[in-house]
Amino acid sequence: MAVPPSTRPRRLLPLFLGLFQGALLLFFALFVTYDESPVQAEDANLMANRLYSIFPLFQDIQVMLVVGLGLLLTFLPRYGFSALTHNFLLLNFSMQWALVLQGLLHHFHHGRVHLDLHNLLTAEFAAVTVLISVGAVLGRTSPCQLLIVAACEVPVYFASEWAIVTHLGILDVGGTITIHVFSCYFGLGLSKGLFGAARQPAHPKETPTPRSDLLSLMGTLILWVFWPSFVAVLCQPGDAQHRAILSTLLAMSASAVTTMVASSLLDKDGKLSPGHLQNGSLAGGVAIGAVADMAVPPVAALALGNLSAVACVLGFRFLTPFLARKLAIQDQCGIHNLHGLPGILGAAASAIAILVASKDTSGSRFSQATPVGINASEVVGGQWGDRGVGRQALFQVAGLVVAVGGSLLAGLLTGTALRLPCLARPPEQLCFEDMLYFKIQDEAESPGPGGTAEEGALALKERV
Amino acid sequence: MAVPPSTRPRRLLPLFLGLFQGALLLFFALFVTYDESPVQAEDANLMANRLYSIFPLFQDIQVMLVVGLGLLLTFLPRYGFSALTHNFLLLNFSMQWALVLQGLLHHFHHGRVHLDLHNLLTAEFAAVTVLISVGAVLGRTSPCQLLIVAACEVPVYFASEWAIVTHLGILDVGGTITIHVFSCYFGLGLSKGLFGAARQPAHPKETPTPRSDLLSLMGTLILWVFWPSFVAVLCQPGDAQHRAILSTLLAMSASAVTTMVASSLLDKDGKLSPGHLQNGSLAGGVAIGAVADMAVPPVAALALGNLSAVACVLGFRFLTPFLARKLAIQDQCGIHNLHGLPGILGAAASAIAILVASKDTSGSRFSQATPVGINASEVVGGQWGDRGVGRQALFQVAGLVVAVGGSLLAGLLTGTALRLPCLARPPEQLCFEDMLYFKIQDEAESPGPGGTAEEGALALKERV
Amino acid sequence: MAVPPSTRPRRLLPLFLGLFQGALLLFFALFVTYDESPVQAEDANLMANRLYSIFPLFQDIQVMLVVGLGLLLTFLPRYGFSALTHNFLLLNFSMQWALVLQGLLHHFHHGRVHLDLHNLLTAEFAAVTVLISVGAVLGRTSPCQLLIVAACEVPVYFASEWAIVTHLGILDVGGTITIHVFSCYFGLGLSKGLFGAARQPAHPKETPTPRSDLLSLMGTLILWVFWPSFVAVLCQPGDAQHRAILSTLLAMSASAVTTMVASSLLDKDGKLSPGHLQNGSLAGGVAIGAVADMAVPPVAALALGNLSAVACVLGFRFLTPFLARKLAIQDQCGIHNLHGLPGILGAAASAIAILVASKDTSGSRFSQATPVGINASEVVGGQWGDRGVGRQALFQVAGLVVAVGGSLLAGLLTGTALRLPCLARPPEQLCFEDMLYFKIQDEAESPGPGGTAEEGALALKERV
Repeated sequence: MAVPPSTRPRRLLPLFLGLFQGALLLFFALFVTYDESPVQAEDANLMANRLYSIFPLFQDIQVMLVVGLGLLLTFLPRYGFSALTHNFLLLNFSMQWALVLQGLLHHFHHGRVHLDLHNLLTAEFAAVTVLISVGAVLGRTSPCQLLIVAACEVPVYFASEWAIVTHLGILDVGGTITIHVFSCYFGLGLSKGLFGAARQPAHPKETPTPRSDLLSLMGTLILWVFWPSFVAVLCQPGDAQHRAILSTLLAMSASAVTTMVASSLLDKDGKLSPGHLQNGSLAGGVAIGAVADMAVPPVAALALGNLSAVACVLGFRFLTPFLARKLAIQDQCGIHNLHGLPGILGAAASAIAILVASKDTSGSRFSQATPVGINASEVVGGQWGDRGVGRQALFQVAGLVVAVGGSLLAGLLTGTALRLPCLARPPEQLCFEDMLYFKIQDEAESPGPGGTAEEGALALKERV
Repeated sequence: MAVPPSTRPRRLLPLFLGLFQGALLLFFALFVTYDESPVQAEDANLMANRLYSIFPLFQDIQVMLVVGLGLLLTFLPRYGFSALTHNFLLLNFSMQWALVLQGLLHHFHHGRVHLDLHNLLTAEFAAVTVLISVGAVLGRTSPCQLLIVAACEVPVYFASEWAIVTHLGILDVGGTITIHVFSCYFGLGLSKGLFGAARQPAHPKETPTPRSDLLSLMGTLILWVFWPSFVAVLCQPGDAQHRAILSTLLAMSASAVTTMVASSLLDKDGKLSPGHLQNGSLAGGVAIGAVADMAVPPVAALALGNLSAVACVLGFRFLTPFLARKLAIQDQCGIHNLHGLPGILGAAASAIAILVASKDTSGSRFSQATPVGINASEVVGGQWGDRGVGRQALFQVAGLVVAVGGSLLAGLLTGTALRLPCLARPPEQLCFEDMLYFKIQDEAESPGPGGTAEEGALALKERV
Repeated sequence: MAVPPSTRPRRLLPLFLGLFQGALLLFFALFVTYDESPVQAEDANLMANRLYSIFPLFQDIQVMLVVGLGLLLTFLPRYGFSALTHNFLLLNFSMQWALVLQGLLHHFHHGRVHLDLHNLLTAEFAAVTVLISVGAVLGRTSPCQLLIVAACEVPVYFASEWAIVTHLGILDVGGTITIHVFSCYFGLGLSKGLFGAARQPAHPKETPTPRSDLLSLMGTLILWVFWPSFVAVLCQPGDAQHRAILSTLLAMSASAVTTMVASSLLDKDGKLSPGHLQNGSLAGGVAIGAVADMAVPPVAALALGNLSAVACVLGFRFLTPFLARKLAIQDQCGIHNLHGLPGILGAAASAIAILVASKDTSGSRFSQATPVGINASEVVGGQWGDRGVGRQALFQVAGLVVAVGGSLLAGLLTGTALRLPCLARPPEQLCFEDMLYFKIQDEAESPGPGGTAEEGALALKERV
């Protein structure tokens, strides 16, 4: 299938990435050093223990983002290689870009940026928002467009996180609001900004095959297994972290079962929809983030898991088609159902949990809770003590509103910028197609397995 | 392929699961809290360390059960999605159900059930038995039937575990007898009870394809890698745990190599059988569980790995066809070869190890050994000290007999219950078929990759 | 497709493996015990902590070798099962063989070999060299030939490691020189020795399909995620290990991005080549090993990642075809591009780092650096203190030269030995073909998915 000249991916991608790598080298050469403890035997031991407590969780999160999320996106049968590779590229690019921004914003002391594993982790969290957002436009965008999204979204994420965590002081240890809600509405804005009022027609290559559905389900299962590490990695060690792990496990287990209930009830033959399973099973993990380390009872985690799975499945069945039909908002992966609706539920749950818990225990146990992101001990120690319970609950809601509003607006603007013709948006006919970006042999053209054609070719070749 | 009305999966599945989720919420709301240490700085530190020592192993086990075991079952080419999903559903349902039963039986103090990661782990072990047992009837059962199996097997498992670990005081840190042997014979009983004297005909969809065999082998490899965590997670920290890990690694390595020897020798062309590799490589891990933390020399671990792999491969070649032909016992996944035979070998090895070790060291090193399951320190400290070596060896054998007998009987009864027509057993023609339960496009109907048909469809659509 | 009698894999494989398992049992029975700490409460605690610090990293490395590397090799569409299985067999066989040799060489005290997790780890590192080397001849060799390679390469590896680490005292914590460079040139020698001056014709079954490329990319991603564990596992706990992890993460992130730049620039349409991505993304991890725990700044890790990715991609594009055309050196997986070129870059970087660092800090921070392999504290403490910086840099280069020369020679000899006819090298027509070694149904012969043929068969069978 010959690609017409005008649609060929240009030199823009390597040029952009190459320049960025150069700038990164310059920045690192000038400013960045490793964060090292003064060389003392005790410190080294402490350092080692701190490393052992965070590194296994860090690896779990890497598996989630690189393998799990990548596979989840391979449900498009002819776009699996692109989905995996673009996800991988965006993760690396966004993390590097986040390290630069983070260095400039937070870690600049005495003219140097001090790098440690914790920095890399928060940079990775910034990258996660990009990986989620681009799910809304998966398959209809070029790598160049995706990089522009990353370039725009990471600084907006830091601004949003500063506003709602540092400034408003909301509690969100697992990133329900700061990561999931933010990236979901950024992605929807992006999609709207990019496609405008034009409804995207259904595309024959969009339909998953049994094989691509299976791969995608494998991705779901990998994400499902490691999700507790994602939620708990930034918790205070001890009870809070233990509670966060348990709550996440309960919420995800409830989600998995409830997804099957909801999906089966929505079909007249009681059959389950692969898309529901791939996403609904994870909804509980999204929702639990904001309350994971709070002193909520186990039943709340189960209930939140149940509710968010129902919301996710209903969203796929009714809301996504509605948004596409009425508002012409295209959401390829259904990120609104997996990250938006459960995220809102989680934010609401956190406000309720704060109100309820204060009656039980006058809030004293919240002192162990830590928001995601940069050192929040002052936040919790300072503002929360003064603030009173009612105001904190209100601030949780305010944080949600800021995250939704800010991300929608920024996404819209970014999406509009993606219309620049030089960014080489793929033509409709070549959407969802690996061959546009990769030197991959078309399966139709490949020699059949076994068969005479192949042996003929071999015989021919050996004669020559 | 139109599904005739009578075979449509009914509303029974969502109804049953929905009611169960409701009951679970009620139980959790009334009785369950998290287990929290009193808030003290030192305790928190200790708590954190305990968490770090168990959580990575817990995650490994989750990967094994959700991803590894799920993939292992995808060897049926048209049933991969069902295998993964049903495995996932059963794990979650059984774990929740086990948490309820466990709470009622063991952890009820002062009217509350205290939940921690250790509870979840033992609940997960109960769930494992279900996942193994249903392997005997994979592909010929409806999800409703599978849930009934789970509902019946989990309480029987707890009873069996109480009888052989708490009451008889057998040593079985890796679950060789309590988990593997138990679930194997439960599964065989189940199969016999369900299918009765009718021999199941060979089904054209049973034959693995190269692709499904490859996925299944990936599952084996994942299980193989993480098996040491499964065996060692409940060991006493220190030497016993170290030894358990080493013994498991040695046994599994020996199994992997010996499987190839045995499989190759059984074929006239020396070709290896994928099914042998997928199962035999894991046989050593099953067998080693009962002796993993005992003071056995490394050579015993190797020998046990060798023997169990040979038993597994011979079982596939001779015993499974024999059971099917003579006793009309259907064993779809060959669980008797992977869990039954190696489990019996492991139980025998544990009795021998106890007898031999006592001569060497008068048993003093056994003080570090811990049986699987609920706090066993009294067992080992109390009964074993009084009991004498010969009796302990005898009790190991008695435990094996109880596990086999109890599980066979319970499995038979459960299998008979599965014949209830309302449970919607799939008709023969629709066995091993994802499309019966999932809205998955038939590959035969899907548009060919590339080709003109697809572009024609696209062109047509764009014209419309 | 009938396999002619003369090409049938013989009884040689099971015979050889069976005899080896017997010898292994004998060796273990006579000489090997577990390494146990004297039974004291404090020691047990320390032991447990040491176990928790190494075991998660050990598991990561197992995942890399068994699953990641195995999948990476599945890019040959009809050889995936063989690639996974042979990789798995070679890992186990080589590790067992390495344990024997290691026991004889290093751990023999008072007539006993004391086994612990650290021994298993170093044995696994020896096995890695075999897994890498055979990549050069993947698909054109029989399992018997591969086992001969393992039998020859492991002792040569120990000799080479003794020469360059223990004797020359080079620093190489991540195995850049001792593992990657060594195994690469062993593999090239092997290929030359086996195939001689005959150029291997391109084979129709060599061409990857989209599906096999996707599986292979999954392998890459798994390797990418866990690589930091491979590099850091033998580092001194504390700052050195922290630094090794960070440096590896940075180098691999830089590699991932730069690979896309380089691969895109080399194609006239800017399309990316799957082979480049599968290998180039990992090049940084190979190169960083020799400097990972040294006091190099973060920018050096990034730069090394960039450079090695460029070298790898250029190698695939120009050097591999050149070697095949001019020197008739066949390199099926491109191990020279992934392990050779980045390894040489890494070795050069280590020499430069030593020279540069000495000017900054007079080398004092190197005291934390540890070479890979058996206890190297004397090496670093002793020789390095006396030696002076310039000489140490020179010794790094000398180590590289020894590794390249020794492995090339040993590889050539081993390759020549593989020409023995009894080793059953597969005939050209049956290369890259699973069916030669496994009882796998040919996809062409398998019943089509769904379709009438299948239902006809079913109907027929039921009638019978």
